[in-house]
Amino acid sequence: MCRFLAYLGDAIFLEELVCAPRHSLVRQSLRADEAKAVTNGDGFGIGWYGERNSPGIYREVMPAWSDENLLALCSNVRSPLFFAHVRAATGTGISRQNCHPFHYGPYLFMHNGQIGGYGQLRRTMEARLPDHLFEHRRGATDSELLFLMIINRMEMGEPVAQAVGQVLNETLAMMQVLHIEQPLRFSAALANGKDIHAFRFASDRRAPTLYLHRYAAQGEVIASEPLEGDHDGWELIPQGTVIHLSAQGRRAEALV
Amino acid sequence: MCRFLAYLGDAIFLEELVCAPRHSLVRQSLRADEAKAVTNGDGFGIGWYGERNSPGIYREVMPAWSDENLLALCSNVRSPLFFAHVRAATGTGISRQNCHPFHYGPYLFMHNGQIGGYGQLRRTMEARLPDHLFEHRRGATDSELLFLMIINRMEMGEPVAQAVGQVLNETLAMMQVLHIEQPLRFSAALANGKDIHAFRFASDRRAPTLYLHRYAAQGEVIASEPLEGDHDGWELIPQGTVIHLSAQGRRAEALV
Amino acid sequence: MCRFLAYLGDAIFLEELVCAPRHSLVRQSLRADEAKAVTNGDGFGIGWYGERNSPGIYREVMPAWSDENLLALCSNVRSPLFFAHVRAATGTGISRQNCHPFHYGPYLFMHNGQIGGYGQLRRTMEARLPDHLFEHRRGATDSELLFLMIINRMEMGEPVAQAVGQVLNETLAMMQVLHIEQPLRFSAALANGKDIHAFRFASDRRAPTLYLHRYAAQGEVIASEPLEGDHDGWELIPQGTVIHLSAQGRRAEALV
Amino acid sequence: MCRFLAYLGDAIFLEELVCAPRHSLVRQSLRADEAKAVTNGDGFGIGWYGERNSPGIYREVMPAWSDENLLALCSNVRSPLFFAHVRAATGTGISRQNCHPFHYGPYLFMHNGQIGGYGQLRRTMEARLPDHLFEHRRGATDSELLFLMIINRMEMGEPVAQAVGQVLNETLAMMQVLHIEQPLRFSAALANGKDIHAFRFASDRRAPTLYLHRYAAQGEVIASEPLEGDHDGWELIPQGTVIHLSAQGRRAEALV
Repeated sequence: MCRFLAYLGDAIFLEELVCAPRHSLVRQSLRADEAKAVTNGDGFGIGWYGERNSPGIYREVMPAWSDENLLALCSNVRSPLFFAHVRAATGTGISRQNCHPFHYGPYLFMHNGQIGGYGQLRRTMEARLPDHLFEHRRGATDSELLFLMIINRMEMGEPVAQAVGQVLNETLAMMQVLHIEQPLRFSAALANGKDIHAFRFASDRRAPTLYLHRYAAQGEVIASEPLEGDHDGWELIPQGTVIHLSAQGRRAEALV
Repeated sequence: MCRFLAYLGDAIFLEELVCAPRHSLVRQSLRADEAKAVTNGDGFGIGWYGERNSPGIYREVMPAWSDENLLALCSNVRSPLFFAHVRAATGTGISRQNCHPFHYGPYLFMHNGQIGGYGQLRRTMEARLPDHLFEHRRGATDSELLFLMIINRMEMGEPVAQAVGQVLNETLAMMQVLHIEQPLRFSAALANGKDIHAFRFASDRRAPTLYLHRYAAQGEVIASEPLEGDHDGWELIPQGTVIHLSAQGRRAEALV
Repeated sequence: MCRFLAYLGDAIFLEELVCAPRHSLVRQSLRADEAKAVTNGDGFGIGWYGERNSPGIYREVMPAWSDENLLALCSNVRSPLFFAHVRAATGTGISRQNCHPFHYGPYLFMHNGQIGGYGQLRRTMEARLPDHLFEHRRGATDSELLFLMIINRMEMGEPVAQAVGQVLNETLAMMQVLHIEQPLRFSAALANGKDIHAFRFASDRRAPTLYLHRYAAQGEVIASEPLEGDHDGWELIPQGTVIHLSAQGRRAEALV
Repeated sequence: MCRFLAYLGDAIFLEELVCAPRHSLVRQSLRADEAKAVTNGDGFGIGWYGERNSPGIYREVMPAWSDENLLALCSNVRSPLFFAHVRAATGTGISRQNCHPFHYGPYLFMHNGQIGGYGQLRRTMEARLPDHLFEHRRGATDSELLFLMIINRMEMGEPVAQAVGQVLNETLAMMQVLHIEQPLRFSAALANGKDIHAFRFASDRRAPTLYLHRYAAQGEVIASEPLEGDHDGWELIPQGTVIHLSAQGRRAEALV
């Protein structure tokens, strides 16, 4: 299990959400409130869009709470769209390549959850990737694999929400064939530089928490946990839902 | 605050105490029970005596709970005298140089606690070190500084327990001159390759916990917390006490 | 390209070969003489057999030349059979999981060279692994993959030299199908806790150098480069050869 | 010895100088041409000014040549004033705290060279720092110490060039008292967010190289080595000189 947040709105310094709040993501790395794993100290990452199509990335295996680079970056980088993630590893190794967010071209992706029985499924899933996406794979996590499967469908023209829905269905079907009983859990966010899609889903209806919050006048935040310690103004995203944040505002729909 | 353990006895694999017990030191790095800081993820270190006078050392800035090298080392190194320490930083940076145990010649030292007002005292204390010991200083912690001050007195012929007592008195006197109100807390262990001295002291009588335990037939363990989850057979070392473990058995006396 | 050494004989401290010689492996990490890549600073690893069947392992992403843990370990660990490797990455990421030596049960493996067109071949090769070996894969390198393919054949009863020969032939066949022109180069060593097999092979007859050396009265060393700067007493292993070191002495035969 | 570069001018992406040129600083980390130490793989750092007074900082102990974060940062951060530095350690440990650039409030500083006999001088020099600057010291290098001594004089009202000159004189005087024969070498740069002062000095007239270069229409670069492999358009800064770069252009004067 992990904790993450995503922001879309007027450009703000990353520190406003990542470091400064009372229950900031950095704080959650040491002591999360609503996660199965209290400590999320197995590395972290941030990704942000600036003037270029492809995002800036900083990923590190140290715990977020003690990383001075993270503080210095977050207090100097301002962005209208950014992701931040702290990791609690679930079986795959501690390496930068396994830290979120993952990126591919203009896309950023991060995930909280897991594929039940991933060890058994991994190769079957990898076999479905086209060569150019498989070669882009850097790490060993189920999260990166789901991301590349989603990208694969998007490259074939499917809209984001449909691509994600199909990848989840496809994965569930593979799990069924192998009689895997452990659940598929998927709280995640995907950005393209302009807008964000966030997802909350679990095959056992126990998806990791994911909240939506209006940030001041200028933006929207999606986060695993409210950042100020209380839940006022934080709306729990219902399971089975996809949230679309864009310049046109927020829109929720059912994940199919 | 930190957590540590020390062992003296027949040679055993380090993993028997460091990794295997239900509430092992590796487990305590993620979730300590009796520490102010629940998480001790700011690096760790082990030191052990083998066939040589000077000990082997492995110190790392990663959390102990996720370090594969630590597991592999502990399952392959056997020693009759070893130290292990997991760190929760108190103000000084995260670097290997700041990880315990510290070593000097045949000596190993580790510490749980802190010097109140260390920032104000540091230079005065460093000024009292002779050149050769100051040049040996690698990091920035109060712990390493206390160790070198103790070594200094031992090099002048003072027995261990007296050297430690004098350094604590000296430090308290400097704190008083500067009207520092924060306490001096010192739960620590020092080894010379043959025997171990362990100390539990605090100027405010709130010294970090330190326990003594007979390990099977063949050894003695000193640890910040019992390693099996319950306190049976674990004796809390009284504050103001020094424990001496050697081939001749254990001996407790008052720290002066 | 990388540099490595392997030792079999009476137990010696690792430092005698890894750190102390004038052109030691630590020195070669900074400045190799006979390698395509002068600097081998993309991590390193050591593996050694002690009292247990499975070896001790220490792998790190730092350059070997600046790692204090490596020095402390090598001056305190004594072993009759050990491997040491410094890495110059060829395309796959810098992570501990990609550092040599790799291990599986009682086996240690390290490699200098590469599979031409690995990006294209990787999935086909991975597909040939049985599930339990695929699940053991931690990193992304061609070296680890070759190792697991060799293990696979050994588990089916093939002797080491034959297993290696078959894996090389199999790989060459796959390369041919895909019309890959880049060479397969393979200077490598494999140990089982008792003896060592070393291999020097390249499809273009430009295999990385590998030398054999009688160490004092008590042992044999295999190394990418002579450790003392001159070649006296260092015998270049001919290409297409496998060397078998055991308590019965050394034996060379053609690799089939 | 180390390698560094500094830029002042219209905002450019850091990658234009740090990563992209044929003999970029990242390239120099692996293979420098004009340095005593060919490899500068003992960590690196960048510092840049954005919208805030205090600069952004990213320092890491990995070699620059293999750090993916560095590439991603440099391709997404644009700045009108930035520093970049790759380190070859000279005696003090490998830690982020020992990596350049150092920062204090709005100031950035980086250095190539060393204080002869630093081990003997260190405490005397540290004793001259006021408490608030000593407490800011994070690492153990001579470079950071020189920086804080310069800041101390600047806080008392001395202009930059004079402060640097006085600190060098002061250091030379201390070296003389201790009969230190090794030289003081100081190629360095200091920025305040608006302009840059660069220095080239050595007591033995063998100061590390430092070049000045007009970058396209819009800026000036100072670098240890020309970034394109040839010296056309790169002017070697004479020893004993301070260069002042500002919106008003460049100005050279003798360092006193």
